[in-house]
Amino acid sequence: MQLGLSVSDSDASPFTPLAVLELAHDTKAEAIAWLLNRIRDKQRNGGAELLVDQLLFPAQDGQKPNPNVFVVGSTLQRLLSGAEDVGLFKEFQDGTMRGFTYANRESFKDFEGDGEGFLGDAECQYIVKHELDTLRAKNEEYIPGYPKYKLYPGKSIVRRLQSKGVLVQYFPLHNKEDLKRLSFSWYKKIKLSFQPLDDIRSYFGEGLGLYFGFLEYFTFALIPMALIGIPYYLFDWEDYDKYVLFAVFNLVWSTVFLEVWKRCSATLAYSWGTLGRKKAFEEPRAGFHGPLGLNPVTGREEPIYPSSKRHLRIYLVSVPFVLLCLYLSFYVMMVYFDMEFWAISIYHENPNFATSVLLFVPSIIYAVVIEIMNLLYRYAAEFLTDWENHRLESSFQNHLVPKVLVFNFVNCFASLFYIAFVMQDMVLLRQSLATLLITSQILNQVMEAFLPYWLQRRRNKRVYKRMRRLMGDKELPLLEQIQLETEMNTYLGTFDDYLEQFLLFGYVSLFSCVHPLAAVLVVLNNITEVYSDAFKMCHVFKRPFSEPAANIGVWQLAFETMSIIAVVTNCALIALSPQVKAYFPESDAQLILTVVAIEHVLLAFKFILAFVIPDVPKHIQVKLSKLDFESLEALKKRKILEVAET
Amino acid sequence: MQLGLSVSDSDASPFTPLAVLELAHDTKAEAIAWLLNRIRDKQRNGGAELLVDQLLFPAQDGQKPNPNVFVVGSTLQRLLSGAEDVGLFKEFQDGTMRGFTYANRESFKDFEGDGEGFLGDAECQYIVKHELDTLRAKNEEYIPGYPKYKLYPGKSIVRRLQSKGVLVQYFPLHNKEDLKRLSFSWYKKIKLSFQPLDDIRSYFGEGLGLYFGFLEYFTFALIPMALIGIPYYLFDWEDYDKYVLFAVFNLVWSTVFLEVWKRCSATLAYSWGTLGRKKAFEEPRAGFHGPLGLNPVTGREEPIYPSSKRHLRIYLVSVPFVLLCLYLSFYVMMVYFDMEFWAISIYHENPNFATSVLLFVPSIIYAVVIEIMNLLYRYAAEFLTDWENHRLESSFQNHLVPKVLVFNFVNCFASLFYIAFVMQDMVLLRQSLATLLITSQILNQVMEAFLPYWLQRRRNKRVYKRMRRLMGDKELPLLEQIQLETEMNTYLGTFDDYLEQFLLFGYVSLFSCVHPLAAVLVVLNNITEVYSDAFKMCHVFKRPFSEPAANIGVWQLAFETMSIIAVVTNCALIALSPQVKAYFPESDAQLILTVVAIEHVLLAFKFILAFVIPDVPKHIQVKLSKLDFESLEALKKRKILEVAET
Repeated sequence: MQLGLSVSDSDASPFTPLAVLELAHDTKAEAIAWLLNRIRDKQRNGGAELLVDQLLFPAQDGQKPNPNVFVVGSTLQRLLSGAEDVGLFKEFQDGTMRGFTYANRESFKDFEGDGEGFLGDAECQYIVKHELDTLRAKNEEYIPGYPKYKLYPGKSIVRRLQSKGVLVQYFPLHNKEDLKRLSFSWYKKIKLSFQPLDDIRSYFGEGLGLYFGFLEYFTFALIPMALIGIPYYLFDWEDYDKYVLFAVFNLVWSTVFLEVWKRCSATLAYSWGTLGRKKAFEEPRAGFHGPLGLNPVTGREEPIYPSSKRHLRIYLVSVPFVLLCLYLSFYVMMVYFDMEFWAISIYHENPNFATSVLLFVPSIIYAVVIEIMNLLYRYAAEFLTDWENHRLESSFQNHLVPKVLVFNFVNCFASLFYIAFVMQDMVLLRQSLATLLITSQILNQVMEAFLPYWLQRRRNKRVYKRMRRLMGDKELPLLEQIQLETEMNTYLGTFDDYLEQFLLFGYVSLFSCVHPLAAVLVVLNNITEVYSDAFKMCHVFKRPFSEPAANIGVWQLAFETMSIIAVVTNCALIALSPQVKAYFPESDAQLILTVVAIEHVLLAFKFILAFVIPDVPKHIQVKLSKLDFESLEALKKRKILEVAET
Repeated sequence: MQLGLSVSDSDASPFTPLAVLELAHDTKAEAIAWLLNRIRDKQRNGGAELLVDQLLFPAQDGQKPNPNVFVVGSTLQRLLSGAEDVGLFKEFQDGTMRGFTYANRESFKDFEGDGEGFLGDAECQYIVKHELDTLRAKNEEYIPGYPKYKLYPGKSIVRRLQSKGVLVQYFPLHNKEDLKRLSFSWYKKIKLSFQPLDDIRSYFGEGLGLYFGFLEYFTFALIPMALIGIPYYLFDWEDYDKYVLFAVFNLVWSTVFLEVWKRCSATLAYSWGTLGRKKAFEEPRAGFHGPLGLNPVTGREEPIYPSSKRHLRIYLVSVPFVLLCLYLSFYVMMVYFDMEFWAISIYHENPNFATSVLLFVPSIIYAVVIEIMNLLYRYAAEFLTDWENHRLESSFQNHLVPKVLVFNFVNCFASLFYIAFVMQDMVLLRQSLATLLITSQILNQVMEAFLPYWLQRRRNKRVYKRMRRLMGDKELPLLEQIQLETEMNTYLGTFDDYLEQFLLFGYVSLFSCVHPLAAVLVVLNNITEVYSDAFKMCHVFKRPFSEPAANIGVWQLAFETMSIIAVVTNCALIALSPQVKAYFPESDAQLILTVVAIEHVLLAFKFILAFVIPDVPKHIQVKLSKLDFESLEALKKRKILEVAET
């Protein structure tokens, strides 16, 4: 994408655009001038030392386009020094991954000449984002032109502009050629193959690379379960002895699955250079507010919000609200059961086609209502977590994820638990499980890929037509590409994608012993999921900034918790089976005690297994300790030299 | 202890002796000369650059004393540079703890003049030990004089001398004056006060400091339980409603207790400079053997032992052996019950004083047998773990501790579990608990402090008398002190001390709801334990080398596991109580289900609590991130300067 930009008021030489900054339509000229100056200023003057240029879109249909759109780029030298700032790990000559330093640049593999092509596209964009994010106010007391938008020394300028709505959005640009190549190898060829994880990572960053890696791993791991599940369905093995076998297999599988994933994810993260990498110092969130005070860590002035107040908000408002929502979810579930019974009674009174269709209506309505409740709750949870005023994005996420997970879990599985353990109706359980699973899968895929794509397409067509009218039939120029991307939806992160996989994992593991076919359904879903997710990343959403990640974070914990709950539910289901009950003809108590004992043994076994399997494969551990050892030795050598000199 | 040593063949100036090296009586002269030379040699020649001198004891009673005893010391300058080698953390001017560097020495608090008194006694000894341990073979192919004792470049000389029995022992010297001061403030004054943890740490190192900190914390934490337990005993509250209350209190207590300890230990470790400190690169154990190969991490030649072979040894020999021992322990338990029933039947046949005394005999015999079995098993476990041929001491410990813990747990508690859940005899349970607890406490204190002390005293008296005869009535000179200490027992580490506390914790938490008085007994035991442990550290054993530790390591996990098992047993005991049974008159199954549900909720609550309480107090976290932040900023500044220069 080494395209020269020939835009009006630029006196600099043309550069490769990496990211787009869109300021509000009515931003004051002095604020713009100041911002551009700060971005272009030398690092030693506290600037970002990046290249920036204005984009002037032609007027269309009498509509005046936003004049305040800018592209940001950088010189190669600045990118390389920025790579050191962000602590990028690259492959060294000896095959280990090491923190990149400009001084040692020649010793890194693939570094040739002046370093052209050494950094990937996404890495360059990540560096630009980091440099913009850490562009700090010096002595400015407010944003020029906006005396009300206060600044203080050290405040991130971009964060303040974002929180005040002056900076509408900023995003990295797609690279048409790379995207074409990626999408071809990823989802455009219909052929059985692994996903091009390394390419995905170098185009979208480590966070998304790990998500797609997990999706693939999860799907492959389900295949044995799916294969075992098929004969159960085909031969109608309504035989609990066999279900018990299946459940035990399932328990061992889910533990080993999660442990082995940790090792796979460590291997991926190591080869992508995020495993040993130190996390950069986190900036406060854009929305974090409070009276100014001194941060005890940085010694800088910044908003201070006492954690005691935050705890009050969490425990007195958020927790009760979540509990209330859970209660509501239970209430809706009870209404669903009333509807279900009512439909059954009508069918029994007058069994014909209309009433037999009616039998399915409550389940479908309930599935839709669940999705809507999940969506509404999601907004409420985000609002509440925002209101809790967390200083860091990571702490915001750590409080948002459990809120959403607990509710989604209860909302999706409460009815199944009720059917299984209160009504103890295994036939209904199997039927509800299938209905819920299928409905939610269809709804999900429509909501997350096809609907946005359709909306997008309609909008794009309009833009496209307009542009064609203006530009004739030439190759789609950069200006048009930028305008199209500016109007695309923003990808909000992997949260929803992981959440979906989490719920699918729940369907597979919680009630596996009454519905062995669930794994087949999930495998089928995930195969289409790969395609729809790949498609939505490439064509529906703006390109996201790459997000360095060494593991799937809180989701590992969430999946592990689910697998523990699965042990409990599967043991309980086994206890309810008539075959197992037959072993304890005279006493229920004896049966329950035996099952509880087995459950405890299984849980203990699970913990021991998780403890015994090392989280990082040995060859990676060796490489990591090699680095540690070398730096220790180097230090020692330097010291001995110093001592010898004195 | 700035005492000049006027020993015969030394041409160097006198120095403060820090540690003693004792070589075998018949060590060849060339080996000695070579070793001393390597110790004295300059660092740039690969030497340790330490001071070393021979000690010549006078002949006693015609016995020729060992001529090969050496004292090691160091110049101040060497110690300061060694402090940087080992990565010592010291208090900085601004109150944070930072890695000491010789270049910045002036910026550390308490550094005055040339740094005299900046390093504590134990720190100096630790540095000397580290320098001796990392004294490596250069091109020597064997130890001079011993062509069979092979060396290879990079092999630790001291480890090889130890494993071949040439180096009999090496240990740090006591500092008479500090010891006097410490023992006075620690255990010689009878008055209610906290232990002088900082002094203990600066005399014995962080590992022992944390042990005594834990002992004190555990004892204080038990006081509320003991206070609540007393009325149960006094008023004979054989009322299960009240026991239920006590058990619930106990569960919450044990979780909070362990979580708060993590925070306390982090605070202690921070103020002692071990929290942020990086672990030094671990040397292979002295006993580790195998054919020579290249270590993939260090690139040095060293013995290689494939982990597959080790795994075979672990899973095919060690695990079956442990299971066999557990079976044996069960068998002994059944024999004990037979004896118990036999004693009871004899008493019932003919109740008189002799037979009523007989009633206690089986319990006491069993308690003694348990102690003996624990001791024998301990040797077997050490032998087996040694045979598994672990490369690192830490991995050796990680395999030894679980072996010993599982057996000790089963051996000590199996009979109680049997009485509680198979015989369901709560009166017998309470009685056995008390007998076991008291017997094992008495046995323990005798075995670990008084017996060694008594043996020691007898030996010392002999040495003392001899010396007096030779030296007249002068102040006890250094030579005599060294000879006394050479013959003292070696302290084998905190393992046995923690193990004892672990078992006591088990007695308190597992069956607390039938025996609330256990806490009182444990508090009483621990008060004497502090005194006997303090006494044994100061007067029975050689001074140990200080062991840096940031937490109590694997014991935290062991205590947490115990507290989880405690939830299960207490819930089960509550289910067995007649009062609770009365709530579910018609159905046992209903009762069991309810109790199991409560147990699961309690366990979930425990995990959530452990997750929510941060492991490191906030003010320590702030200090740690401050350091991180500062080093990042310093790096950035240096970089901007570099860029500006180019």
